[in-house]
Amino acid sequence: MERIREDSPVTLYYQLMEILKAKILRNEWSLGEKLPSEAELCEEYGVSRITVRQALAALEREGLIVRKQGLGTFVSIPKIEQNLASFYSFSQEFRKRGLKPRTEVVDFSVERADAHLRQIFNLGAESAVYRFTRLRLASEVPIAIESTYLPVSLFPGLTKEILTESPLYEVMNIHYGITANSAQESFGAVALGEEEASIFGLPVGAPALDLERLAYSGERCVEYTRGVIRGDKFRFHVKLD
Amino acid sequence: MERIREDSPVTLYYQLMEILKAKILRNEWSLGEKLPSEAELCEEYGVSRITVRQALAALEREGLIVRKQGLGTFVSIPKIEQNLASFYSFSQEFRKRGLKPRTEVVDFSVERADAHLRQIFNLGAESAVYRFTRLRLASEVPIAIESTYLPVSLFPGLTKEILTESPLYEVMNIHYGITANSAQESFGAVALGEEEASIFGLPVGAPALDLERLAYSGERCVEYTRGVIRGDKFRFHVKLD
Repeated sequence: MERIREDSPVTLYYQLMEILKAKILRNEWSLGEKLPSEAELCEEYGVSRITVRQALAALEREGLIVRKQGLGTFVSIPKIEQNLASFYSFSQEFRKRGLKPRTEVVDFSVERADAHLRQIFNLGAESAVYRFTRLRLASEVPIAIESTYLPVSLFPGLTKEILTESPLYEVMNIHYGITANSAQESFGAVALGEEEASIFGLPVGAPALDLERLAYSGERCVEYTRGVIRGDKFRFHVKLD
Repeated sequence: MERIREDSPVTLYYQLMEILKAKILRNEWSLGEKLPSEAELCEEYGVSRITVRQALAALEREGLIVRKQGLGTFVSIPKIEQNLASFYSFSQEFRKRGLKPRTEVVDFSVERADAHLRQIFNLGAESAVYRFTRLRLASEVPIAIESTYLPVSLFPGLTKEILTESPLYEVMNIHYGITANSAQESFGAVALGEEEASIFGLPVGAPALDLERLAYSGERCVEYTRGVIRGDKFRFHVKLD
């Protein structure tokens, strides 16, 4: 069990809030479930009633719980809504929701481009592409898995370490002077396969969004990505005129 | 079995194309499955080799099949891509893909607005809303189920018949002088429930997109819709700048 540390520079209510938030995001407490009472939380974490109330109020403001008069406190829908108004960043969106973003580059290789990729990037027969997979986490909960292809000719010398240190579009811009300024994205619904399900800690076959993205610098395609986003914690949002 | 009618004003190849298309859209032939050979199709439908080739060429142009040299003809991914660039219409998108759109209004009732709807539409305590469910079909294949709420005060005298005759935004505009000119939409992934699965002819738990839409006329919310879209035949597409 995670514990409150009295000697931490972080306030007690904030520590408690983070512990409770992680439980909700990890589905230890799932949608609609009733939280322990204030008295139970006081006892379990060895904190005052005031501290518990502050933590619950903060979670309520973030939309993770709802308090129902006379009934108790319940886990609310904690879906992350990603706005599709423009080029977006998972990391920024997670931060806005008070979640800590982290990206893990889980593999990185150089491959010969197949016919599909040669067509996308307008490459010759023997051209090479980087292929890497990034795991996107929000407060250590995996939200999305993205597999990305980039042409080696546009990004010579790219390494896993460079990608681990900075966001992709920053790497393109700062290291290579290439600005991705538009993208074509499409989304559908898919059932999670075995590997994805085990990464997300969800059952095989659970509904997910699948994503395809082509990013462009001017007319030139500079990125091809396919991703899977867990369906239980994420929605896309768009304004139409 | 559907038959080619020699006495029809519709050309033979077009009739054959429609028959084959319906089989693909109804999943009788599923993704990646090999179609019967040209000779087999000639025999089955009593048409010439030229007619079969014309029908297959038309299906290939629509992206429903792919022909692989020396291997045969295979069912390709026939997903409908709905562009999110602006206010969209399922019917228009289906037509663009050569599919016949049809909307079936499956229920229609007047209900007292609950707290959520009163807040959305800014209504008083005893206000009424229409609630109706529309089934969206593409060449008789159900693609989406939408449940819509409208405030009665904005659309007095609305009936199921009016909604059956014209698209919703036309009804709003022509009958009530109300132009829906913006919308907030969000979508995520869900598993199909029993009733939806039976309408779509898919297994319970199959992945689908769930959609929520608030449409506005100026600042005023004039429509609230929740929908489910089958995941095997539909994607959203968006351009980001």
